[in-house]
Amino acid sequence: MKINKKMKASLLVSAISAIALGSVPAIAQEAAAEVPTASDASVFVFNTLLFLVSGMVVMFMAAGFSMLEVGLVRSKNAATICLKNIALYSIAGIMVYLFGYNLIYTVGEGGFLAPLDVFWGADDSAPIDTGYSSHSDWFFQMVFVATAASIVSGTLAERIKLWPFLAFVAILTGFIYPIQASWEWGGGWLDAMGFSDFAGSTLVHSTGGWAALAGAMVVGPRVGKYVDGRVAPLPGSSLPMATLGTFILWLGWFGFNGGSQLALGTIEDAMSVAKIFVNTNMAACAGVVVAMILTQVLYKKVDLTIVLNGAIGGLVSITAEPLTPSIGQALFIGAVGGAIVTLAVPVLDRFKIDDVVGAIPAHLLCGIWGTVIVPLSNSEAMFHVQVIGVLAIGIFVFVVSLLCWLALKYTVGVRANEEDERLGLDKTELGLEAYPEFAKS
Amino acid sequence: MKINKKMKASLLVSAISAIALGSVPAIAQEAAAEVPTASDASVFVFNTLLFLVSGMVVMFMAAGFSMLEVGLVRSKNAATICLKNIALYSIAGIMVYLFGYNLIYTVGEGGFLAPLDVFWGADDSAPIDTGYSSHSDWFFQMVFVATAASIVSGTLAERIKLWPFLAFVAILTGFIYPIQASWEWGGGWLDAMGFSDFAGSTLVHSTGGWAALAGAMVVGPRVGKYVDGRVAPLPGSSLPMATLGTFILWLGWFGFNGGSQLALGTIEDAMSVAKIFVNTNMAACAGVVVAMILTQVLYKKVDLTIVLNGAIGGLVSITAEPLTPSIGQALFIGAVGGAIVTLAVPVLDRFKIDDVVGAIPAHLLCGIWGTVIVPLSNSEAMFHVQVIGVLAIGIFVFVVSLLCWLALKYTVGVRANEEDERLGLDKTELGLEAYPEFAKS
Amino acid sequence: MKINKKMKASLLVSAISAIALGSVPAIAQEAAAEVPTASDASVFVFNTLLFLVSGMVVMFMAAGFSMLEVGLVRSKNAATICLKNIALYSIAGIMVYLFGYNLIYTVGEGGFLAPLDVFWGADDSAPIDTGYSSHSDWFFQMVFVATAASIVSGTLAERIKLWPFLAFVAILTGFIYPIQASWEWGGGWLDAMGFSDFAGSTLVHSTGGWAALAGAMVVGPRVGKYVDGRVAPLPGSSLPMATLGTFILWLGWFGFNGGSQLALGTIEDAMSVAKIFVNTNMAACAGVVVAMILTQVLYKKVDLTIVLNGAIGGLVSITAEPLTPSIGQALFIGAVGGAIVTLAVPVLDRFKIDDVVGAIPAHLLCGIWGTVIVPLSNSEAMFHVQVIGVLAIGIFVFVVSLLCWLALKYTVGVRANEEDERLGLDKTELGLEAYPEFAKS
Repeated sequence: MKINKKMKASLLVSAISAIALGSVPAIAQEAAAEVPTASDASVFVFNTLLFLVSGMVVMFMAAGFSMLEVGLVRSKNAATICLKNIALYSIAGIMVYLFGYNLIYTVGEGGFLAPLDVFWGADDSAPIDTGYSSHSDWFFQMVFVATAASIVSGTLAERIKLWPFLAFVAILTGFIYPIQASWEWGGGWLDAMGFSDFAGSTLVHSTGGWAALAGAMVVGPRVGKYVDGRVAPLPGSSLPMATLGTFILWLGWFGFNGGSQLALGTIEDAMSVAKIFVNTNMAACAGVVVAMILTQVLYKKVDLTIVLNGAIGGLVSITAEPLTPSIGQALFIGAVGGAIVTLAVPVLDRFKIDDVVGAIPAHLLCGIWGTVIVPLSNSEAMFHVQVIGVLAIGIFVFVVSLLCWLALKYTVGVRANEEDERLGLDKTELGLEAYPEFAKS
Repeated sequence: MKINKKMKASLLVSAISAIALGSVPAIAQEAAAEVPTASDASVFVFNTLLFLVSGMVVMFMAAGFSMLEVGLVRSKNAATICLKNIALYSIAGIMVYLFGYNLIYTVGEGGFLAPLDVFWGADDSAPIDTGYSSHSDWFFQMVFVATAASIVSGTLAERIKLWPFLAFVAILTGFIYPIQASWEWGGGWLDAMGFSDFAGSTLVHSTGGWAALAGAMVVGPRVGKYVDGRVAPLPGSSLPMATLGTFILWLGWFGFNGGSQLALGTIEDAMSVAKIFVNTNMAACAGVVVAMILTQVLYKKVDLTIVLNGAIGGLVSITAEPLTPSIGQALFIGAVGGAIVTLAVPVLDRFKIDDVVGAIPAHLLCGIWGTVIVPLSNSEAMFHVQVIGVLAIGIFVFVVSLLCWLALKYTVGVRANEEDERLGLDKTELGLEAYPEFAKS
Repeated sequence: MKINKKMKASLLVSAISAIALGSVPAIAQEAAAEVPTASDASVFVFNTLLFLVSGMVVMFMAAGFSMLEVGLVRSKNAATICLKNIALYSIAGIMVYLFGYNLIYTVGEGGFLAPLDVFWGADDSAPIDTGYSSHSDWFFQMVFVATAASIVSGTLAERIKLWPFLAFVAILTGFIYPIQASWEWGGGWLDAMGFSDFAGSTLVHSTGGWAALAGAMVVGPRVGKYVDGRVAPLPGSSLPMATLGTFILWLGWFGFNGGSQLALGTIEDAMSVAKIFVNTNMAACAGVVVAMILTQVLYKKVDLTIVLNGAIGGLVSITAEPLTPSIGQALFIGAVGGAIVTLAVPVLDRFKIDDVVGAIPAHLLCGIWGTVIVPLSNSEAMFHVQVIGVLAIGIFVFVVSLLCWLALKYTVGVRANEEDERLGLDKTELGLEAYPEFAKS
């Protein structure tokens, strides 16, 4: 595996060294005359392949969320959380097909809301002027939408009823997520203003987090969580499963952030994707180490659950800008993410917001942190615009989600009755057990 | 992640818009003069890479089957089913090397049976006139063969003896699968007749299903499954594991179907692979949602096990033709697959066919459905030829498998004795326990 | 999925058939005039993509090691082993950034030790004369370093204290591994001598194994392992988890060995990567089958744990040279690996070396076997040089590791006290339980 200098320096003209990594495409195109380029067909295939491979591992994040959540709930709710996760992914796919993709991408430049156009899939017949297969992009966008919904299922586990939860998922993935995403990725008003959110710290993770927060407020904490002013831990049933889930999420994040470069077919795009991989990885490493040290210092014991969330917090934090930071900056951004998840859990408990898996600190708070810190490394981003984006999306998603949750609460009801909750949703909602043979201690 | 129009429209000539997705290669080649093409070397590397990345995730389906099956068996048979799965994959690799690959690919045009040629691996020395590495194709074919064997292990779990099962696996992967696969993918008589099975609804999944059905008939149901005219549920020991397995299978299916395009190096191939990804994904989504709704309506409770099989049923159904359907058609095909797995389980139970993981509905019945529905979207496929293919392969695989199972039954025996079955195969066959520390309730 | 001859033979000139697979790049370059080549940009992107996709699945091996180890420890130590695994990966990332990458790659031709240069990441600013993104290589190297550390955690599980273990991980990943790796992959003295270790049987796996062996000697066996001259089995708590971990490792190995080709952008590189995939896969298959047969013969029962290690032993064995063997040779190399893991466990027990997961046979012994057998298929490798490399790296890693372990032992201590060990590290180190709800039998 020795590194050979397999290509002669003369082949790749030295001019390429002048191309700053992370330079915007416009700059890269100016320099293009001096840099070797692939054929148009190769570029098309590379770009499409990036979407497909990235989309594939982002799809697998659905398994990661499932395992993380099933490990952090009690065994009496384990089957239900599995069902919710495979169902939400499936509903997300159908809603993106029916409404979501259209809402994201036909908003018009600087716009706020796309005209509603039902049954709109990827466009096969349009001229290929984008440099990639439209289906590959469609797939990549679809799995992103599912990710936002996965965040909600974790926070609301163990007490929300199945079908009302899935109804909210349909609204979130078909309308709420797509509308706010259109503001930035569809070329809407936030994009026109210069808001910067590379892979979705705010658009995906905070969006999921706000929807989860609104749900947690409406649904209320689990029975026995806050009793007599004390916080009961209600530990998860399988930390190895939760660890597996975290590793799967980490794996998927290479696709999540790397794929968001949206192109692989040029030397500068390939360099960018590679740098994104490194920064994404290092932010997670820093989140883990900081969460370990902080829990050791604060609680005298390392807390595995918080360490796992430290990895996720680091990953969410770097998601708004994984390209422009140096490795050192990526470590810093991820380290703060790890600190946020460690320190925020007690704060949420003070407000009696019962977040079963810690998704609100990891996705909402770290999403905000990642978004506002973008100007540290990306000189094109402006702090005040980042704040505007965070606030606009936060208010929109939170308020609309809250209204939806309230509407569900006062119609079909959102919460299992207390007796069902005590018995566990597996028995009462599904009529089965996740681990029927293992005795409870 | 905003979608930039990174490539100028002029680069990719507008003529490409005329190329219908899903057009057969012949049509694509006619248009080739007007479409930008990659260099021959790039095409070779892209095609090889498609096989390798696809093969890698299809290999990982062995883990998916393991986890699905280990979650759906009782804990006293959990280690044995793990062993069977890693062993069957390994035996498949060796048998494909010794006999299988030769049997598939040297059958001759329109032929029925290839001359037997032992110890035939991938051909390194032949001129490269195929546009991909022969080893990459070899790897891709090998993992497909293993998939068929994985289907059998699930159906026959909890009562079949280890070594007789592995003996059957050797026959299936070395001879039965390769011979019927040669009829279509080797260019044999079914291919000559115009049979269409893109990625193997019939060749892989029904083949595994027929072999499993024959085995289930010979081996008989588990002790306690059918008593006094009633069906005992014998629930699986870990639904979270089964959920993980299903997600892994879903992931692997992108490689299974996408890789079956066999080429990635041209714009039209890349577009095809991308469309296959979308359709594969959406068929699974539809299978999940339909299984959820149907179990809710029929049984008043959503059944997670059936929902997981709904995903698999949707995936198997789309496998015969993942390229030509529109997204809407893919949803329909997958939805019917989800309905099939939901409705077929009671039918099997009526015939006292004990299919531990529900593999026969998901792989055999949905494989048939997917194959006969190909003409819906693919105008080149003919319904009567599809039926001929389903019947020919079905009869061949079922009859030969039945004979093999009977031969095993009346020589070495295929079934653990009743006492061993009650104790569990882990203790009696392996002398250990899968979960030695967890008390049974 | 019928294999079409999609590319005309004339496109790829028949001269290519003369290129022997596994030929060294120099030979390939001579033939380059006659073989179609991709554009320089495509080659760059392909090479970078190989590093990224390979690195991604090698990263996922951290999950594989976690699951393997968590399945093979008792449940009272399950959370701790999860924590150690995610922590060691994170620490490896940071140490490679701070020290390791510099130590590996700036050693100078024929050198022994690179000048220490703190805070050295991937070089963005250098001219691109290597044919791939430096960040992609950085990522690929980083995940290799983590792999070595993962080996140590398994051997020393269930009794080593958390923070001293992590201190050793920092030393191993920041200094010990990089220094010995520089001798070969950095172009140091072993490379100058002609030592051959394609993907790291010695550099990665034996290195991890030697460090683990030194640790096992210093830390000592678990309480209750060797009592009155008898060996207690202390079975693992979840064989399904261990099986999953093994499959994940198998998956990751395609990236581990395939990515070590370091290039994908030419026809001969693509052919080489494909051949590596096949050989890697087949060596593992052989390891599984031999371990099955041997345990059946020796113990009258197939031992799943040993079979899983048989897969790993096969994989480690082929890692030193996955390119030049024929499939038959790969099967032989892997088969011996499977035999080694089966036969070595009792030998270690005789010396009271308590290796919880069997990592020393699988990684150290099979790593040695794989390295010394390289000359069988690779005529450029010399047996005596292979032995020198094995000995030099073995002595260096073992002695330095031993000194580190001893230094840790006589300062902070490395071993949990006996009472803590009996209670389990989860309760005493982390203050929690991995499976808090499941009763112990």
